[in-house]
Amino acid sequence: MLDRTTTPLLSLIRRRRPNYSLEAPFYTSPEIFAADLEAIFEQTWIFVGVEPDVPEPGDAMTVDIGANAILIVRDDDNEIRAFHNVCRHRGARLVHDEKTTVGNLVCRYHSWTYDLSGALIHAEHMGEGFDRKCHGLKPVHVRSLEGLIFICLAEEPPADFDEMAAAMGPYIAPHNIREAKIAYQHDLIEPGNWKLTMENNRECYHCGANHPELTVPLFAYGFGFAPEELDEAEREQAARYGCLVTDSHRAWENEGIPSRMLEHLDDMVTGYRTERLPLDGDGESHTMDTKAACRIPMGRFPSAKMGGLHFWTQPNSWHHFMGDHAVTFSVIPLDAERSLLRTKWLVHKDAVEGVDYDLENLISVWMSTNAQDSELVGFCQSGARTAAYEPGPYSPHTEMLVEKFCNWYIGRMRAHFDTTSPSL
Amino acid sequence: MLDRTTTPLLSLIRRRRPNYSLEAPFYTSPEIFAADLEAIFEQTWIFVGVEPDVPEPGDAMTVDIGANAILIVRDDDNEIRAFHNVCRHRGARLVHDEKTTVGNLVCRYHSWTYDLSGALIHAEHMGEGFDRKCHGLKPVHVRSLEGLIFICLAEEPPADFDEMAAAMGPYIAPHNIREAKIAYQHDLIEPGNWKLTMENNRECYHCGANHPELTVPLFAYGFGFAPEELDEAEREQAARYGCLVTDSHRAWENEGIPSRMLEHLDDMVTGYRTERLPLDGDGESHTMDTKAACRIPMGRFPSAKMGGLHFWTQPNSWHHFMGDHAVTFSVIPLDAERSLLRTKWLVHKDAVEGVDYDLENLISVWMSTNAQDSELVGFCQSGARTAAYEPGPYSPHTEMLVEKFCNWYIGRMRAHFDTTSPSL
Amino acid sequence: MLDRTTTPLLSLIRRRRPNYSLEAPFYTSPEIFAADLEAIFEQTWIFVGVEPDVPEPGDAMTVDIGANAILIVRDDDNEIRAFHNVCRHRGARLVHDEKTTVGNLVCRYHSWTYDLSGALIHAEHMGEGFDRKCHGLKPVHVRSLEGLIFICLAEEPPADFDEMAAAMGPYIAPHNIREAKIAYQHDLIEPGNWKLTMENNRECYHCGANHPELTVPLFAYGFGFAPEELDEAEREQAARYGCLVTDSHRAWENEGIPSRMLEHLDDMVTGYRTERLPLDGDGESHTMDTKAACRIPMGRFPSAKMGGLHFWTQPNSWHHFMGDHAVTFSVIPLDAERSLLRTKWLVHKDAVEGVDYDLENLISVWMSTNAQDSELVGFCQSGARTAAYEPGPYSPHTEMLVEKFCNWYIGRMRAHFDTTSPSL
Repeated sequence: MLDRTTTPLLSLIRRRRPNYSLEAPFYTSPEIFAADLEAIFEQTWIFVGVEPDVPEPGDAMTVDIGANAILIVRDDDNEIRAFHNVCRHRGARLVHDEKTTVGNLVCRYHSWTYDLSGALIHAEHMGEGFDRKCHGLKPVHVRSLEGLIFICLAEEPPADFDEMAAAMGPYIAPHNIREAKIAYQHDLIEPGNWKLTMENNRECYHCGANHPELTVPLFAYGFGFAPEELDEAEREQAARYGCLVTDSHRAWENEGIPSRMLEHLDDMVTGYRTERLPLDGDGESHTMDTKAACRIPMGRFPSAKMGGLHFWTQPNSWHHFMGDHAVTFSVIPLDAERSLLRTKWLVHKDAVEGVDYDLENLISVWMSTNAQDSELVGFCQSGARTAAYEPGPYSPHTEMLVEKFCNWYIGRMRAHFDTTSPSL
Repeated sequence: MLDRTTTPLLSLIRRRRPNYSLEAPFYTSPEIFAADLEAIFEQTWIFVGVEPDVPEPGDAMTVDIGANAILIVRDDDNEIRAFHNVCRHRGARLVHDEKTTVGNLVCRYHSWTYDLSGALIHAEHMGEGFDRKCHGLKPVHVRSLEGLIFICLAEEPPADFDEMAAAMGPYIAPHNIREAKIAYQHDLIEPGNWKLTMENNRECYHCGANHPELTVPLFAYGFGFAPEELDEAEREQAARYGCLVTDSHRAWENEGIPSRMLEHLDDMVTGYRTERLPLDGDGESHTMDTKAACRIPMGRFPSAKMGGLHFWTQPNSWHHFMGDHAVTFSVIPLDAERSLLRTKWLVHKDAVEGVDYDLENLISVWMSTNAQDSELVGFCQSGARTAAYEPGPYSPHTEMLVEKFCNWYIGRMRAHFDTTSPSL
Repeated sequence: MLDRTTTPLLSLIRRRRPNYSLEAPFYTSPEIFAADLEAIFEQTWIFVGVEPDVPEPGDAMTVDIGANAILIVRDDDNEIRAFHNVCRHRGARLVHDEKTTVGNLVCRYHSWTYDLSGALIHAEHMGEGFDRKCHGLKPVHVRSLEGLIFICLAEEPPADFDEMAAAMGPYIAPHNIREAKIAYQHDLIEPGNWKLTMENNRECYHCGANHPELTVPLFAYGFGFAPEELDEAEREQAARYGCLVTDSHRAWENEGIPSRMLEHLDDMVTGYRTERLPLDGDGESHTMDTKAACRIPMGRFPSAKMGGLHFWTQPNSWHHFMGDHAVTFSVIPLDAERSLLRTKWLVHKDAVEGVDYDLENLISVWMSTNAQDSELVGFCQSGARTAAYEPGPYSPHTEMLVEKFCNWYIGRMRAHFDTTSPSL
């Protein structure tokens, strides 16, 4: 627990100016980084992977979040389970690879052995008073939302996960995540605080100047705009885009595919946002030619032109689901100035690389976009380190969802550290 | 501002023993490093480069000093200007290269655009209440002393820069810095505290044993000596050297070239020292054969044998001006145990490499000398880290200018942190 | 001195649970690492090398322990001496190589010169009031135990070194360390706290699963076992091993070779343990074929089958002496999470590599074993960093000497920091 008497954290939280970027210590201070881990990453639901990461019983995956080494396994009853990845004897880390397959979980040091339910089933030489039942692996809360795996490190996880799951289930289910495979995973260490990575994701004001690949299938007016800066012709185009979205939502929902915007970014602990949006050009996928990248559809859809469903969760994920493939993103804080962005591209599990999809075509848009965003995040981190940095104003037309991210973040910090103030 | 109640800085400053090297924390403590930045590098005039770094309108140069990212540009009216290198929107660093040429200053993130006076001239989508005039780049004080560029990060820079400039102008002007070009720049990260780099520069007691190249054009007696250690013959040589200096000064000054020693190393905030000294051998330049390295003279001089003018400034520079070329040195603190030494070799802007000068011949003396000094600085840093280190005595005959550097430094620290004591 | 009011060190020391591994901060906290240096490595006798490291007058060796840079030389009278490796003038490090040979000790910076007794014999330009006698090198306590070199950084070293030396001398003397040479030295940086490296050395519970090479010459029952887990046949084998040890001790001691176990791991400040144990197979040495690796014997023994003598010292060494060669190990803490393991293989000084011994055969068992242990230490360090780590139980049959190491460590910490409690 952060020492509340000696840190300026509380006053920084309380004086946060709405509609302005955060003060520099939120991006640079190791102490606030530790507070973020404590109040955010150890309290809320964190997206860490997908069921296709551990498709078969005995498959295991590890992920480290701050000081928490987490082990996720599929047990012999096909259930997903999560544990702390530490032997109860001398404290050695149990599983070392990010992905592996095991029978039981055997510690390399002295061969203590746990089954896939976490029970200690073998430990030599411990003497007659030793009770194996007191030395099982420590469990971690885990939930799968239609194949998206979330963990929570709190003793009492936020209850509104169920509310999000009830609302989002029908949006995600048709995309068939559990029947998919991971075609590619890419880990990128971004040179910035995790919040800069998230803020970057929450607006597309920067897309026009920085993302030539990503903007191919997207409509420019979808990024937001200041109406007073448009001329007559532009105003007309913007109106046409608005109608296209409304019409698409109506058409898709008539076919039983939920598409309308749901937005609870700063009014739920388990904050999220979703919307299915039409794509430009051929309108099938996030690719350079806007056509499907994989010829075996992943989802169960009436047409190939289903646009793209995005799904964002606070604090650390975003996802794009198309008819033919999906891309999931999780952000793991490494230290105050570095974050891991883990991206997974999913296709139907029967699809064969080189036959049904070309890997380069599948991944190129987001490989480029991630690299571009990482550079921009680095520019902001570099600026936040300077003596001259001060919070700047968010655009009311294009950065309102960045503001919602900051508002949610400050709300969670108040709820955890500022017990005298009303909070969510 | 350093917390004065919990740090031992104040007692370390107050108990400094004159004529002895500083106590170890001055060289190793991150807290005192932060105090140095605050009291020295953010208060006094810092040498950062020369006008030939930005010869044309639109030319820009960046330099980072502690948490201060500085941008120096030549504007369309040919004026040198300095700004904090941070966008006022989301705080991204603006200019990334050390040298570049721009029309306007455009932020890569969302295309906010500033002109060369720092005014914000373009920012999309910000809504109707947004005032561009409140979001210009933050300016930094900048002065050019006959082409040598100094910045000051304080709100109120030390006023005695004018006094130094008035005295030094006539010494430097004949060397024509503004008509020069940078033939070569070398950045060396020395493995030591910035004060060890400066102390090393302020004496030549170590030159005989360590600098075979540098000592070629220099007279050994110019480094200082203990008279009682000389025999009869040596005493005579030392006396002859004294006469040579006096005679040279008289001859040069008669020709209108200021040459006599001026020394205000520890009695001005903007401390400095200068003197023009004769060179050994052919006496023209700091080269291995002591002849001019460039056949186009840089300065406006009656003769090639004008010796070498040195100019030192507190806290972070030294310079050598010869008839044919000049060498400038700036020291930028990186952390408590690492410093950047940036060296620039200047020749007349019309000189052509390979025709008028051989680059290797031009730079070899100081390339070797810097590398040797860097190793010695590392030895001292390594020693200062040890439990057994204690301040040792300075030689009264060869290290009195090291003492003046330390005296100036301690004086500036007292002035900033010890408000109850009388100071400069 | 650690600040006793703000650190939790004292409560961590006081609440240590016997027979359980230490709490995580003992392995991860930089503050406790600093306390370890202060209370352990700057107070007790530390093994740093062997006389064959400096066989001739003028031979010098350096070793850095925390902030202490130590220089060990053999002087012109053949005595081993130790000094702080820092010049008394400007504090430069004096000797830079780990091994070298010198006439006098000359500082590279300004040529101050010390003789091998540490006296300053030359310093130019220092003026008439300067007294060389006040500026000699600072000495460090040093002892050789039959060729094993220990230093102590305390002003008053623990007096019970003499007691250990009196007991251990007869065990080590026949191995003739002073007549040996260093056939090979290997430095390995282990990714863990120094105590994890030591704890790993103090048990062989992990050997069966991890050290295929080391276990070739060792008897499995020598590692300890839970009697209740043995079947009838195993119980008989264990009894036979017990008789073999007793019989070997009696036979060797009858021939004048001390062999019985001496154990003062946690009841002396200068804690140690020794025992000569029979080897399996041909029983001559720690090699893959259990035969002597060097055909010139190192020790003065009646037979080649003298087993292996181990000698452990608190806090930082272990040694294996065989008839043909010896292996010494010292652990030097680098930071809270890294330690240097320095291993030296000794053979008779007349032995010729490639003729009398094959280097690969000599070193392969411990090169492999060290690499395996280093990985295990890394697993524990990785686990100690996690939020879920908690101290686990030691086996009463196989980890009792790990418990003695921890008990000695906690005792030394109490003695230094907890002046109100009774201690050794």
